[in-house]
Amino acid sequence: MKTFDEIYKLIKNNQIIEARNLLVKMNVVDIAQFYETIFEDEDEEHFIVLFRVLPKDIAANVFSYLSPEGKSHIIQSVTDKEITYILDELYLDDVVDLIEEFPANIVKRLVENTDEPRRTLINKFLQYPNDSAGGIMTIEYVALKKEMSVAEALAHIKSVGVDKETINTCYVMSSDRKLEGVISIRKLILSDDDVIVGDIMDTHLISAKTLDDQEVVADVFKKYDFIALPVVDKEGRLVGIITIDDIIDIIESENTEDFHKMAAMQPSQTDYLRMSAWELSKNRIPWLLFLMISALFTGNIIESYEEAIIQVTALSTFLPMLMDSGGNAGSQSSTLIIRGLALGEIETSDFFKVLWKELKISIIVATILNAANFVRLYFLGSTDLMLAITVCLSLYFTIILAKMVGGILPIIAKKFNMDPAIMAGPLITTIVDALALLVYFATATQLLGIG
Amino acid sequence: MKTFDEIYKLIKNNQIIEARNLLVKMNVVDIAQFYETIFEDEDEEHFIVLFRVLPKDIAANVFSYLSPEGKSHIIQSVTDKEITYILDELYLDDVVDLIEEFPANIVKRLVENTDEPRRTLINKFLQYPNDSAGGIMTIEYVALKKEMSVAEALAHIKSVGVDKETINTCYVMSSDRKLEGVISIRKLILSDDDVIVGDIMDTHLISAKTLDDQEVVADVFKKYDFIALPVVDKEGRLVGIITIDDIIDIIESENTEDFHKMAAMQPSQTDYLRMSAWELSKNRIPWLLFLMISALFTGNIIESYEEAIIQVTALSTFLPMLMDSGGNAGSQSSTLIIRGLALGEIETSDFFKVLWKELKISIIVATILNAANFVRLYFLGSTDLMLAITVCLSLYFTIILAKMVGGILPIIAKKFNMDPAIMAGPLITTIVDALALLVYFATATQLLGIG
Repeated sequence: MKTFDEIYKLIKNNQIIEARNLLVKMNVVDIAQFYETIFEDEDEEHFIVLFRVLPKDIAANVFSYLSPEGKSHIIQSVTDKEITYILDELYLDDVVDLIEEFPANIVKRLVENTDEPRRTLINKFLQYPNDSAGGIMTIEYVALKKEMSVAEALAHIKSVGVDKETINTCYVMSSDRKLEGVISIRKLILSDDDVIVGDIMDTHLISAKTLDDQEVVADVFKKYDFIALPVVDKEGRLVGIITIDDIIDIIESENTEDFHKMAAMQPSQTDYLRMSAWELSKNRIPWLLFLMISALFTGNIIESYEEAIIQVTALSTFLPMLMDSGGNAGSQSSTLIIRGLALGEIETSDFFKVLWKELKISIIVATILNAANFVRLYFLGSTDLMLAITVCLSLYFTIILAKMVGGILPIIAKKFNMDPAIMAGPLITTIVDALALLVYFATATQLLGIG
Repeated sequence: MKTFDEIYKLIKNNQIIEARNLLVKMNVVDIAQFYETIFEDEDEEHFIVLFRVLPKDIAANVFSYLSPEGKSHIIQSVTDKEITYILDELYLDDVVDLIEEFPANIVKRLVENTDEPRRTLINKFLQYPNDSAGGIMTIEYVALKKEMSVAEALAHIKSVGVDKETINTCYVMSSDRKLEGVISIRKLILSDDDVIVGDIMDTHLISAKTLDDQEVVADVFKKYDFIALPVVDKEGRLVGIITIDDIIDIIESENTEDFHKMAAMQPSQTDYLRMSAWELSKNRIPWLLFLMISALFTGNIIESYEEAIIQVTALSTFLPMLMDSGGNAGSQSSTLIIRGLALGEIETSDFFKVLWKELKISIIVATILNAANFVRLYFLGSTDLMLAITVCLSLYFTIILAKMVGGILPIIAKKFNMDPAIMAGPLITTIVDALALLVYFATATQLLGIG
């Protein structure tokens, strides 16, 4: 953006104050992005200068939006006092993320510059699994008491709100920290001052447990259109809240995980460009190896029909078409079912509905594809009639088998508590390849009088 | 849930008041889900009874969470007065969605029961494309003036807030409706009563234009962690806001679209189980047909090497392994790049970085796969040495080609303003199949002295 070019020029001319005055008007996310480009230009000196000119609260905020490399450079370049300030300004969940992300030497510096009560809290947070509700929650929420009047509640919010991640939803706790109710800032503002919080709070509580999987938490947000969700421990005591901005990241990362699994890779959350060729290879090799060896066994089917191929060499011409069409037809079905299961639109109890639907679809699809295929082979390609019929019949049954297999395997996987996403294109293709070849050569042997 | 079973029993026993008292304590989303199960049981009589016992504001809210079938049944079963009430309680964006979703006869009834000013508004909204910012925005926002004091602003919010979709973010407009600033309810509450809104509002405005694509809007939410975004027209006048609960649905539907495209289907937003076999088939046939015909051409490559297959029939044994491994290796690369492009982690300008990285990865992957392959073929499978070398060399180059093609085609698609998601598994497999066969037979001809 134009403004950022100007600011960069000012900094280079040592007009620090002018640069600062322009910077503070921008959105922190944009400032962080601007810093990132400077850092990538390896202009590390100006990167640090620019960071130091920011007012401290904005600096901490910008820091939280920087890349791991940018953050680590700042931590290594600034004074202990500055680190302490940044850590104090960050929300606890961001500090915990920082500690989980960084190598030991940096973490040591971080921990040394945190005061004792906060250090205890951080240690407690580090015990929750990364992808659990406890691992993504934050503790900066507004707690109210049900005896408070609306006026008292608003006054309390005014006194503590500045340090809270959100004040849009407030939580009503008993004296032993049990969650008793939830009340939105909207409800408080729209109510009269002398109304008692306990009388208007929402007592129909929906909350997460600390060890709930983040995917389950995301589903709750999606279902109820929440913007924040309380997290309670086994005894029902409120320990933190999860806000919607973190949920959007989780939804995207769960989707990324499915995309990766469905393409036969170990999922990874790191940016492609930040990963080494070796790390990326490691994620790809296991499945490729497994599928390659499976396909070698599929090859044995061809080997056992060697005699047929020698008699009718044209048979091998149609192998790519049959195997690819089978694989594609199966991948379509499995993708729809995997996605439907992920979004909760399909349940394992829909097994027979899916089976029946895929059967009908596969008959429609196979009929139309075969019409085109027959025209192409017999009328346009002058293929021998019996061979054309062999190919068409094989394609017909291959597509039906492919769609049945693709439709039900993800449901079966889910039934056995496996991730349906592994039952996607690559695995389905390998399975369908074998089926397609068996059907093909069996049909050929019958119709072409081979053997 | 247990409570819902009880409620259903009460209704069946005609204990309407008792049922109602239990119902109103539940979350509206759960009530809607409970109604849905009754509707699916085809107990339409109790479905309508249950709907009518609800207090009207809860009824309208429950209505907005029902399935299209449930909604349409209610509209056809209740009185005009009841329809008017539901429509008045719904936010305008939900009414517009309703009208876009339903057949003409129902829409007629809806429009007849809407008052004139609202009807004009609805018509205006219907002109925005469904997937544009204008198509997803709502007009129920809080508008403030910059001359107001914080106390005046809060008093204004208190008087109008009950009808607004959100009060968490408020919008400051000039007298000609130009957007001048944004202020959060948090900022208002944490500020002193006599502070002037214009002095503390955020003037660094980030907004959407009415015709912006919903995907672009979602990216803004993701980038800035917003919970609401103002929408302005060409003249910068505020016309509506978009709230984060709608954005989550959009993110999921954009992901669904990518999943479908990447499995060679026309994307669809309707639930799998709600679509007919014919509709589902229509989405699947075009790509299958195109890929089938492409694969027939690939088959021609085999045909032109018929002589080689007759001399060394074992060559055909390795076709599935070569083609599948190539397809899988290419799909892995294309999936990572398509996802990276979708999340903004990879730009088209990273073309050469991706090319170089995929080259390195493919050499690592091809080397390891070939080691396994050679052991399997030569030492365990007693394949002829020259044939084993032919297969390994072909696999080596196939994987390198596959990963290069898979890595760069999505970027090229994006460069030409096409959707990178079509450059996924199925298409990549078809392309790589042809390359694999060419490499294979060329190598075989050289090494096995065929021809």
